[in-house]
Amino acid sequence: MDWGAIDRYAKSLIKEAGHRIRVSFAGKIQIDTKADANDLVTDIDREIEQFFISRIRRDFPGHRILGEEGFGDDVRSTEGVVWILDPIDGTMNFIHQRRNFAISLGIFADGIGMLGYIYDVMADDFYHAYRGEGAYRNDERLPRLEPVAVEKAIIGINASWVAPNRYIDHEAVGRLVADCRGTRSYGSAAIELAHVAAGRLDAYLSMRLAPWDIAGGAVIIREVGAISTNLRGEEPDMLSSDTFIAARQGLHPSILDRYIRLKQT
Amino acid sequence: MDWGAIDRYAKSLIKEAGHRIRVSFAGKIQIDTKADANDLVTDIDREIEQFFISRIRRDFPGHRILGEEGFGDDVRSTEGVVWILDPIDGTMNFIHQRRNFAISLGIFADGIGMLGYIYDVMADDFYHAYRGEGAYRNDERLPRLEPVAVEKAIIGINASWVAPNRYIDHEAVGRLVADCRGTRSYGSAAIELAHVAAGRLDAYLSMRLAPWDIAGGAVIIREVGAISTNLRGEEPDMLSSDTFIAARQGLHPSILDRYIRLKQT
Repeated sequence: MDWGAIDRYAKSLIKEAGHRIRVSFAGKIQIDTKADANDLVTDIDREIEQFFISRIRRDFPGHRILGEEGFGDDVRSTEGVVWILDPIDGTMNFIHQRRNFAISLGIFADGIGMLGYIYDVMADDFYHAYRGEGAYRNDERLPRLEPVAVEKAIIGINASWVAPNRYIDHEAVGRLVADCRGTRSYGSAAIELAHVAAGRLDAYLSMRLAPWDIAGGAVIIREVGAISTNLRGEEPDMLSSDTFIAARQGLHPSILDRYIRLKQT
Repeated sequence: MDWGAIDRYAKSLIKEAGHRIRVSFAGKIQIDTKADANDLVTDIDREIEQFFISRIRRDFPGHRILGEEGFGDDVRSTEGVVWILDPIDGTMNFIHQRRNFAISLGIFADGIGMLGYIYDVMADDFYHAYRGEGAYRNDERLPRLEPVAVEKAIIGINASWVAPNRYIDHEAVGRLVADCRGTRSYGSAAIELAHVAAGRLDAYLSMRLAPWDIAGGAVIIREVGAISTNLRGEEPDMLSSDTFIAARQGLHPSILDRYIRLKQT
């Protein structure tokens, strides 16, 4: 497999998709809801996913595609090469803010993350990594992350996980919020993972993420020495939704041990 | 008073300060703590405040200056012209992220906010307003904000206010978090107020802000028809720290009535 060629192809495809998204703001965006009233999708999400799929199918006919909007393949195993795509991660930001959303793509071979991309379209910040070759923001190599204690950590976590919820003991999460240096929430898992990779957040937690939210980011953060698992400490599953944490080494076990009490779901 | 001339002067001063901050990243930043371990201050915060003060004292000797770092005047009344300055709002972001911080400045005359500025230095986004003349992001006029219901609102609120705290009934805040469309937290009051002004957040709440955190933003958001008060619904006090909410009309009373239960402090 010529991963260098796939890498160049994927970067070019993502940049073209980013251009299409920016152009889309000139027109009217059609907004629909999915499972619940706050799970939003637009015609642009769908168009961008279809753009990726048509190109990948034409140029890499043996590869499979797992995409958020469901136009890809019915992927039930990690065999072979799988492109795991969120055409617009942070759709609510896309609609309400017209910024702070990203294209997220991870390319996996037999379940191993080989290439990862997060493109913050409006900031024109492109994070990318090739397994074993380091992670980059645009042309700048991201340094390996040093360990940090909970008390000095800035943690990406949404306020909804500190309110009562069905996934986790919210009071223990409240203690994490009180003990850490500060919390932030940006409304896009991909952008929060880019922040972890660049050292702007020391950890990022969520109770419910899909493979396309984390596939690109998981490849990238591994290259700077950070760890991503579900909240039971297991390798993220690229076939189904689960809890999620990405964190610097050292911080990762501290958060899981001291603050995470999962409910049976 | 020639407010047009003061406006041009203030804009030029803020841009020069922004340049000095960007240049400061080339050197080493000295970090100290203030009241508690997470209340950070750097030599750059101090230098930038001193830069503002020396210029304002030279060119507007009759004006007074209230600044976060305390190099200004001992301002105990709102009489005359008062420049209310935060040289770097979001110091934790400045240190940990090297972005997502802002210069915040409000210029008040006998307690009335006449001019407001928020400069997101690294994004080079400059929000400004002159009382009665509308608010702008760079050269683009910001439109008046339409009302929005809690259920469709994106609210800027830090997770720490959903955890037990001494200011507010955190369970009621947890219901707000559950009922609204989504929450975000950016770690800079000035930047969150810029987001409210630009319609990217529908409201922003905090349990503890100082005049310099809100002075610039309060002038700006008024020009797009949003409201800022403390959490008892009173006009913000520009002489002491207090609770704070900025929100679109309609949303402001809904949040106060339905979700805010202040503790006696």
